[in-house]
Amino acid sequence: MPDEPLHYLTIREVGEKLRRRELSPVELTGAILDRAERLDGPLNAFITLTREQALARARAAERSLLEGKDLGPLHGIPISLKDLYQTVGVKTTGGSKILADWVPESDATVTRKLELAGAIVVGKNNLHEFAFGATNENPHYGPARNPWNRERITGGSSGGSAAAVAAGLGYASMGSDTGGSIRLPAALCGLVGVKPTYGLVSRAGVLPLSWSLDHCGPLTRTVEDAAIVLNAIVGHDHADPASASRVLPDLTTALDGRVQGIRVGLLREYLGTHVNSEVASAVRTAADDLERLGMRVEEVAVPEVAYGDGASIGILYGEAAAIHERWLKTHRDQYGADVLERLSQGERMTATQYLKAQRARRVLVDRFRALFEQIDVLVSPTVPILAPTIPESRGNAARAQLLGFTRLFNVLGLPTLSVPCGFSTGGLSIGLQVAGRPFEDLTILRVAHAYERQAGWHSHRPAV
Amino acid sequence: MPDEPLHYLTIREVGEKLRRRELSPVELTGAILDRAERLDGPLNAFITLTREQALARARAAERSLLEGKDLGPLHGIPISLKDLYQTVGVKTTGGSKILADWVPESDATVTRKLELAGAIVVGKNNLHEFAFGATNENPHYGPARNPWNRERITGGSSGGSAAAVAAGLGYASMGSDTGGSIRLPAALCGLVGVKPTYGLVSRAGVLPLSWSLDHCGPLTRTVEDAAIVLNAIVGHDHADPASASRVLPDLTTALDGRVQGIRVGLLREYLGTHVNSEVASAVRTAADDLERLGMRVEEVAVPEVAYGDGASIGILYGEAAAIHERWLKTHRDQYGADVLERLSQGERMTATQYLKAQRARRVLVDRFRALFEQIDVLVSPTVPILAPTIPESRGNAARAQLLGFTRLFNVLGLPTLSVPCGFSTGGLSIGLQVAGRPFEDLTILRVAHAYERQAGWHSHRPAV
Repeated sequence: MPDEPLHYLTIREVGEKLRRRELSPVELTGAILDRAERLDGPLNAFITLTREQALARARAAERSLLEGKDLGPLHGIPISLKDLYQTVGVKTTGGSKILADWVPESDATVTRKLELAGAIVVGKNNLHEFAFGATNENPHYGPARNPWNRERITGGSSGGSAAAVAAGLGYASMGSDTGGSIRLPAALCGLVGVKPTYGLVSRAGVLPLSWSLDHCGPLTRTVEDAAIVLNAIVGHDHADPASASRVLPDLTTALDGRVQGIRVGLLREYLGTHVNSEVASAVRTAADDLERLGMRVEEVAVPEVAYGDGASIGILYGEAAAIHERWLKTHRDQYGADVLERLSQGERMTATQYLKAQRARRVLVDRFRALFEQIDVLVSPTVPILAPTIPESRGNAARAQLLGFTRLFNVLGLPTLSVPCGFSTGGLSIGLQVAGRPFEDLTILRVAHAYERQAGWHSHRPAV
Repeated sequence: MPDEPLHYLTIREVGEKLRRRELSPVELTGAILDRAERLDGPLNAFITLTREQALARARAAERSLLEGKDLGPLHGIPISLKDLYQTVGVKTTGGSKILADWVPESDATVTRKLELAGAIVVGKNNLHEFAFGATNENPHYGPARNPWNRERITGGSSGGSAAAVAAGLGYASMGSDTGGSIRLPAALCGLVGVKPTYGLVSRAGVLPLSWSLDHCGPLTRTVEDAAIVLNAIVGHDHADPASASRVLPDLTTALDGRVQGIRVGLLREYLGTHVNSEVASAVRTAADDLERLGMRVEEVAVPEVAYGDGASIGILYGEAAAIHERWLKTHRDQYGADVLERLSQGERMTATQYLKAQRARRVLVDRFRALFEQIDVLVSPTVPILAPTIPESRGNAARAQLLGFTRLFNVLGLPTLSVPCGFSTGGLSIGLQVAGRPFEDLTILRVAHAYERQAGWHSHRPAV
């Protein structure tokens, strides 16, 4: 793609330009910031742009490149962060009124790791308030809008992250995913979104929603870009009690195309009549593509997935209410109506209900452990519907649909991603969900990368 | 001790007699059963004696010994089980009316492991109803009584186990410990009681009270006996989701007396004015003994132990109510008053309260991880008071005292035992509590064994 504009290059491509000195980090950061300032008005992808800090960091990145100090593939690359990653000296609102003016005194571990890898944070992305919602219709900062169709939702809660990356306002954004909040907006905005294995990426310094369901991960335009970002942020962190001590190989080794013989399960329960026909057809076509690539695809039935919603809701609402306990006492009137309604439900939840949900989780984990003895990855649609308009997305029925296929994988803690697998006749993007065994993040990246190269959906661009 | 009667020999001593054929497993089992039938009336240590099954097993043990098939140190040794360990073909009441006639179709993993090691189960011990209490005053089966003074409680919930072993009605009994239920009756009945590291001994097939606080472990008359029983029951079990995969060395290697230089912390908060003076003085004398053995004793202050009660109660009551949810609906009137009161409290607990307790646990775990960088073991009284009479033991104030020093260590999951450290002027036994690092069960056994040999309290016998 020789004519791809700068802002749509891959991280590797733009990095080559930086290293060849065809472009400096300061020029690049300035260009991305200019584009964001020009285009973000209607998209509403950012709550804060950090021009000054970003340019200062870009100058430092430029100096160290000139001195021959190469920090790796993210060196000089403009990215953004969902506005619940703590950033020293830059306000971190959580998409809330309560934290509208909060300027943290410490960085999230991920913020620090990305900056150590040379990435330039150009801004903080819009999100569903406190990440507790699937639409990114934010009563305090306005809705994030889908770059493919601005009447439609981005999906949430990392909707600003998705809008920014899809519109070329940065090369990646860090999102968070408690019930689908990375994969859902990735699917609705034509992006790759990765929820790594639970415990693989530190959540320290990221506003929590649910201790046992929260995951941090990137939204990018390609699988390679996701692997590059993940390489920079994985690893044990004593500041996150759930952080795992497992060490993974370089995740870009997943890009080798070696997918022959991989056993793919196609999840029957997520392909029924409740799935939009264009979505179902795109996913079945993708499954055919996987077979053409040499993988062995078979339908698998897992009736127990029906417990996923109850487990997810019980755990999420219980933990969210506990996390928000103090603010619910002191700042109750400052929550948006929909988030307050969900938190109030969580407040009424008994310990017995919460523990029942945790027991259902146990059953599901055991069931999927057995399933993954027969298959290597599990695929399904990421979302059963196409992106609804903002009014259509309101209410519990839409919410249940939006999160219906993603939240199970937070309960399971399995590495799970969404990769583009087509567009509807109306031009709305469709995502393929790929899940793998714990700490086999490499395998889902490998499958998604081979598929992406075969299918080519990643080269489509919205008209922004 | 050449004149020690048969029923008070150690497991090793009686095992030598069996191997020298001075005694057969059938004679031994018969003698223990006769003694139990003769003495158990007033003690009320057993809910069920299993004469027939025990004698059949003893005959099998005898045959295999004669055939030269030696199953190890428990081969032919009569023991008993708290009546919440499932036993095929033998009723398992949980000390409840609800399960008064339940005959399980499968054994607990521990039951099976002990029988595979050749042990002979002679009966099922009385306990506090569903293990949810500290006194073992059981409304359905009557109170277990302390062999040292029958007006006084054994402590609970493994009180029948303690009474049986202290009175020589078996060489060991398996108890369970959710807030102190092994260590408390061990302390009040002059025994060794071990709560191993959380996850080291399987709880599969043991009626649960609290998933995250329950531990299984033995009550015995000596540390050596405890190590022998533990050797037979430790190890990973896929049927218990919390089972750890750690492999420990042979625990009888702890009996080598090598305690030189071990750093002992004496917990200041558990030696204040709220501790009975005879108890405090016995523990301080024990600390002096540890120094004489070459250990380095220093007082340590851990003000955070104050959070232990709240964390323990929040987790225990929340989980117990969830575990009993169905029976609370279908058999509410069949619970004893005190257990029903606690379960009702648990039913009213919110998810937020439960999760607050789990967060306090996190703080405590971190604090003790730091503490155990400075010390190797932590010692304190097991119980701050002497065994109260049965009427004195009623009510929440007594309960809080009885469990005040033990429940913290269930929250922490650390290996913790109680070993006899003296007697009051009134002849009531006093226990020394010894806690260690996770999976360093060997270390607490080593310290307790060296102390026991030095102090000699294990050779005192109640007048039964």
